[in-house]
Parts: sequence; C-alpha cells; structure tokens
Amino acid sequence: MAQSEFELIGRYFSRLGAQRSDVRIGVGDDGAVLVPPASRELVVVTDSLVEGVHFPPGSPAASIGHRAFAVNLSDIAAMGAEAAWALLALTLPEPDEHWLQQFARAAGDLCRRHGVSLVGGDTTRGPLSITVTIIGIVPIGVALERKGAQAGDAIFVTGSPGDSAAGLALEQNRLHVVDPMSAQILRDRFLFPTPRCEVGIALRGLASACIDISDGLGGDLEKLCAASGCGAEIDAATLPVSDALVTAVGRELAREYALTGGEDYELLFTVPLARLGAMTQAMAMGLGPATRIGTLVSGNGVRVSARGGVMQFSGAGFDHFAR
Amino acid sequence: MAQSEFELIGRYFSRLGAQRSDVRIGVGDDGAVLVPPASRELVVVTDSLVEGVHFPPGSPAASIGHRAFAVNLSDIAAMGAEAAWALLALTLPEPDEHWLQQFARAAGDLCRRHGVSLVGGDTTRGPLSITVTIIGIVPIGVALERKGAQAGDAIFVTGSPGDSAAGLALEQNRLHVVDPMSAQILRDRFLFPTPRCEVGIALRGLASACIDISDGLGGDLEKLCAASGCGAEIDAATLPVSDALVTAVGRELAREYALTGGEDYELLFTVPLARLGAMTQAMAMGLGPATRIGTLVSGNGVRVSARGGVMQFSGAGFDHFAR
Repeated sequence: MAQSEFELIGRYFSRLGAQRSDVRIGVGDDGAVLVPPASRELVVVTDSLVEGVHFPPGSPAASIGHRAFAVNLSDIAAMGAEAAWALLALTLPEPDEHWLQQFARAAGDLCRRHGVSLVGGDTTRGPLSITVTIIGIVPIGVALERKGAQAGDAIFVTGSPGDSAAGLALEQNRLHVVDPMSAQILRDRFLFPTPRCEVGIALRGLASACIDISDGLGGDLEKLCAASGCGAEIDAATLPVSDALVTAVGRELAREYALTGGEDYELLFTVPLARLGAMTQAMAMGLGPATRIGTLVSGNGVRVSARGGVMQFSGAGFDHFAR
Repeated sequence: MAQSEFELIGRYFSRLGAQRSDVRIGVGDDGAVLVPPASRELVVVTDSLVEGVHFPPGSPAASIGHRAFAVNLSDIAAMGAEAAWALLALTLPEPDEHWLQQFARAAGDLCRRHGVSLVGGDTTRGPLSITVTIIGIVPIGVALERKGAQAGDAIFVTGSPGDSAAGLALEQNRLHVVDPMSAQILRDRFLFPTPRCEVGIALRGLASACIDISDGLGGDLEKLCAASGCGAEIDAATLPVSDALVTAVGRELAREYALTGGEDYELLFTVPLARLGAMTQAMAMGLGPATRIGTLVSGNGVRVSARGGVMQFSGAGFDHFAR
C-alpha cells in the first residue's frame, strides 16, 4: 500500500538528532513521552516551509532539512530558551531515498549540534511541505519577549542581515554577481542559516526584548516596537553588512538588503543602557558578533537615518531609500 | 503584501480553544511559554491532514477543522494523557474568510470541550494541509503504550469501527446507501469523529496496551501485537458494528468495514484477565461503550474467526473474507 511506504519513511527518522535521557518514549508509538525538568517553563514553536513559498522548487534536500529545523531553532533562540525536543511533519510527493537521506542527515546534524532529539512525527504523501515543532526549556520567568523594551534602550542585531535575501535572489536568478566566492557565501547564508541559539540563552537577563529576523530587519523591528509601545531610530551606516554582500551588490544596496530582506534568522534585540556594560562583557565572553544599530525612542514606527536624511520605514520597505 | 495577509489570519486563531492559566505567553510572540505541572510527564503528538489524501477536495471547512484536532486528540487519548496545549500549522491556497470562520469555530469547539488551548502556530500560502501538534500531560510512568500486552489479555474496542470508512466512501460516491438517515450518520462519523479522551484517561492502570484506530482495526491490532510480541484472535461476530452500518451495507460487509476501514479514531486496547472486573466497573461508571472482540495469544499476527472458519489478517486486509 502506498501509505505504508510512507510509514517506512517514518522509521527513517526514528533516531534523528541528539539522544536525550529525558525522552522516555520516542518515535514509534502514538505519541512521545517526555520528562520535563522541574521548575522550568516550556517554550513551544512551530513553523512550516512550503515549496515555492519558503524555498524555490528543486532546492537541495540538505538545505530544506537544515532550514526546516533552523527556522524553528531561531524562534526558540529569540525566546531565550534551550531547544530540547522536536516533531517533524513531512509531506512529500514520493518517497525518494536519496532525497530523504540528504534531508535527514542535514536535519540530524543540526539537531545534534543543538542537543535536540526528534521524538515524533508524521509522514504523508502530498505537495512538498515540512512543519517542525520544537519544544524548548527556560528558567521560570526569564523567557525573552517582543514586548518589554523601553525608549532609550540600545538596538542590536547579530550576524550580517541581508545576506540570506541576496542568496535567495541568486538562487532564483533574480540577482547576478560577478565574484563567485561572494555569490557562494550568500547562497550558503540562504541555504544553511545559523540559528543564534547560544546568543539567545546569553541574552537572558540582559535583553529587554528580542525577536528573530524572518521577515526583514525593518519589519521585525516594527513588530518589536509595536509590542513594546515605542519607536526606533536606526543609523543605516551602522548596519553590519557583510563583505560578501557589499562585494556583490555595493554598499548602498547591501544596506537595503539588510533592512528589507528576509529569512535572516538573526536575532534583533534591545538592551537597557544600564546593562550595556554587562552586554559588552557577554559579547567578549563569546556571545558572538552583535552590532548596535540604533536606539529605541518614544512614539512609534521605525526611522532610518542615512546620508544625512531620515526615512520612515513602512511595511513595504523604504520606498525612497537612497541607493 | 501577500504574506502579511496570512499573518492577519494568524490573529484569527489568537484565542482559540480553552483559556488555561498555565499558558504564560500564548499566540503572538516568537513562541509560547507554558508552565508544566510538577511531577508529570508530557505526551506530544503531531499529525497532518492533506487535502486529497486525508479528506476529499471540497470537504466542509468545519469537518477539516474538527478532524485536524480530533486525530491528534485521539493519539493523546491512546497514550492515556490529558490534552493541554495545541499548535496549528495551516497552509491554505488563499485566505477565505468564510472558510476560516467555519474551520476555526469547529476547531475551537472541540478544543474547548477537551480543555485544550491553542498557543501558537503558523499560517502560510500553499496547497491545503493542516498540521496540528498537541501536548498532553500524564502522571509519571502511567502513559499507555502499544507494547506491554501479553497472551491471555482481552482485546477491546470503543465505539463502532467501520462507520467512518463507509462515511468516506459515501463522501467519495464510492458507496450508495438507500436509507438517508443511515447515510447521514455514517458521513458524520467520518466528518466529525469523536476522540475517546475520557476513555484513554480511564484506562490508566487498567489497559496493558493501547492504540488508536486510524489505519483500520486489523492493521492497528497487528501493530499492537508486533509491539507487544504476541498474536491475536478475534471473533468477527463480536465486532460492534453500528445499526447504521448494517442497514447501509449488510452485516457481513459491515464487519469487513469494521476490520479494514480506517479513520475510526476509536481506541483498541487490551486488559489483563485479572483486571477485567475493574474494567467492567469502569465501564459502568461511564468509561463509555467498549466491546470485547477477542483475546491475545502467543505467537504473532491477527487471526479472525468468522462463520466457523479462521482467516489470517494481512496488511492488505482479509482477501477471502466471507461476505
């Protein structure tokens, strides 16, 4: 029967990721049984990737497997939680063994790296889409939220936003880049984004608010501002654009990618001035690269200063961004 | 932007289901924050419904909303857990307000009835499919499993299996039934299955093994037997077929539907002889209708006695079932 073929695939994922002692029953029964640690809260996230929406048709299976878990790990990171257990709902047109091997290997590598155990799932026939659910653990009351920031807090971002959007444009032949090394770096940043899990954990007690950049820095900063009831001013000159992106598209367009491109899976967070010292220390101790790009202000909305002018950000981007 | 239209839909589900005091942060942030009860284990399940695979194209939105949660509640029930929190990943071709209203109302009604709070999700554009994840709670060490049963244990099933498969056949015009009332009952059993959550909880400490019937009684009994390392003998005459099903297709075909039809979401469980008395008491106290259909035996595989003969069940069904 066709459906039992798909059940066999399920077994393919029976030991994916880290082996954890808090998994009492894993893949293979009607449900998984987990032992949550005492005096902790749980953080749960779920995100779907749909072919043709979140990745171009024909994307490498390894990239799809990596991204399906990375985008969820990024949400866990944005909450300051430590990822523990995952569930995978995989819908695919036909069971292709090579595809499944590549998908599972990349997913398993990423899960192991973050201590995540795949404890259950569902495999079915249909148009290619992947829904991953991850459950994380966080000490009581310290989860990071989008709200909680105040005017005066400094705004930081990890990594180099914009790379991923340029990488996607390259994958879709919407962008052409002369330098092959830069092009490869950008493609890899789209195909294999790095969830900032260690940063999220290090930000507990430091950040006043946090969000991951999936829809673009400007739009996600707007969400953080709306949740916190304040506005933001950022300085385009401080945006941490990568050398690869600048080489590929030039500095001005690189800043536009950084502000409006999506799929970055970097963390955007705010730090009260009184904690900036502790923040600097944490960065030195390996919190990782994070760059201050502006300051929260009273009011609402996101304003960007660039070339001496100031632009108002709107959901659709910066209509008159100076290139 | 098309995607923000879909984000608006997300808000549609922001207060779906029961309101629970153990939800510290619900829908609307990067993840939900939950407060698990002390000294309990968690049971997590996930199941997808894909249009054209799990329900016919054009199925009523209310049925899809109900079933997406019911099939997962059924898995929670089969583990003997109490459902608490749910996540919904909804992929749909276009945001149709009427469709969403019907979907959300049916899902919300079912969730409220079972004390489940929707705490997060993801809405995206694509071919219609729904993945629900439910997290349940169970006292330590009492979760029901497929394994654990032994030869000699009595086999029970809840409700009247087979109705749902006949209902699906009616929906797909593969079956024609003269009696309109029977046809409606059978359709409703497919469109709005009843997850046996109270039964699952009542079976803690009573059942030696349990599984929910999603792929058909015979096939799922095979899985329970394989996990428990034993075989099963069931008596076709004891199968609890409904009056509606017998009226619709006759008694012999009704038994075939009961054994090989899927999508029942009834519980199939085993009880050691020493606990049969307690089991009878529990049934009298409202555990609900459950019927003894046979006995586990040493060996493996499922044998069905009918009309004085005995047939071996195979994954594809009973090839020579007497009609």
